[in-house]
Amino acid sequence: MSAILKAHIEKLLQHSFTDHEAIEQFFVPITLAKKQNLLTEGAICRANYFVLQGCLRMFFINEKGVEQTVQFALEHWWLADYTSFATQSPSSFYIQAVEPTQALSLTYSAQEELLQTHPQLERYFRLVHQRAHAAAQFRIMVLYGYSREALYHHFVRRYPEFVQRIPQYLLASFLGFTPEYLSELRGRSGS
Amino acid sequence: MSAILKAHIEKLLQHSFTDHEAIEQFFVPITLAKKQNLLTEGAICRANYFVLQGCLRMFFINEKGVEQTVQFALEHWWLADYTSFATQSPSSFYIQAVEPTQALSLTYSAQEELLQTHPQLERYFRLVHQRAHAAAQFRIMVLYGYSREALYHHFVRRYPEFVQRIPQYLLASFLGFTPEYLSELRGRSGS
Repeated sequence: MSAILKAHIEKLLQHSFTDHEAIEQFFVPITLAKKQNLLTEGAICRANYFVLQGCLRMFFINEKGVEQTVQFALEHWWLADYTSFATQSPSSFYIQAVEPTQALSLTYSAQEELLQTHPQLERYFRLVHQRAHAAAQFRIMVLYGYSREALYHHFVRRYPEFVQRIPQYLLASFLGFTPEYLSELRGRSGS
Repeated sequence: MSAILKAHIEKLLQHSFTDHEAIEQFFVPITLAKKQNLLTEGAICRANYFVLQGCLRMFFINEKGVEQTVQFALEHWWLADYTSFATQSPSSFYIQAVEPTQALSLTYSAQEELLQTHPQLERYFRLVHQRAHAAAQFRIMVLYGYSREALYHHFVRRYPEFVQRIPQYLLASFLGFTPEYLSELRGRSGS
């Protein structure tokens, strides 16, 4: 069992789950090169991905043909297109590795079987989704509520590591900036 | 036990949960007048709300002093500020009734006790949050990806009932329009 996933389950379930060895078989370790795709538009999101090392992003291609990132996942985050995953229907999104990445893949049927055989993990996934839902509420507030400059400073304060690690053109796209505007802001704030 | 919540639990758990009478005590029915607040900025979001009839919205007041809606909840939807709820810390949001509304209130401690005594409901809340997470991913795509006119037509197609029921000035604010622009769009499309 991956020590990183084990630690995450123990943290969220406060050490009430101990059957880690028995669930190892449900997860498939995967290694991705930089820019390798896990999901492409029109395909079915077959699995839920847990990042062990590296970074994934989910994006779509907008009306102008430009890639628009909607979500990043660093270590300890789960990522999937949950509409496509839950209904096993075609996705509107891409999932791609931002840097060389190691992850665990939990297919839809493996997740169903895991939760049937180990229903204590429903609480783990409930908490994972509740946190992601909370983050999305906050994200929507930030998208609506801040000027572009305030949005950048907000991210630098709240996610300093994230801002350091993500390539600048992806950070710019995530925040809805041009790369030139981002570089101007960074120059201005001396970061 | 509310027939509406019972039906929702049965739908998501495929009739595997039958203990409806035993859980009734955890939920408190509430009745709200139009524009009555359930939560105000700076207060703690004490409960998770399930709409039986009517409509709730969650909003914040932006830098310009304008109310900006981030989420609506019609019948069968749960709504809370899940950051404030999970940590029982002050909220950045308001929750208000859009129209006269009946809801069930499940306080944080009642939810914890409910899930400890009836752990089968972890699956119910996992599915509720997974769906809300999926809806938020889609919402973020829509916010980034559509022109303002395409966004309006998208909502009319996908949520016709919603567009009919929500006051036009709130729909405009939700979509990031002025009420004048929305009325122009409606005139143009004959709806």
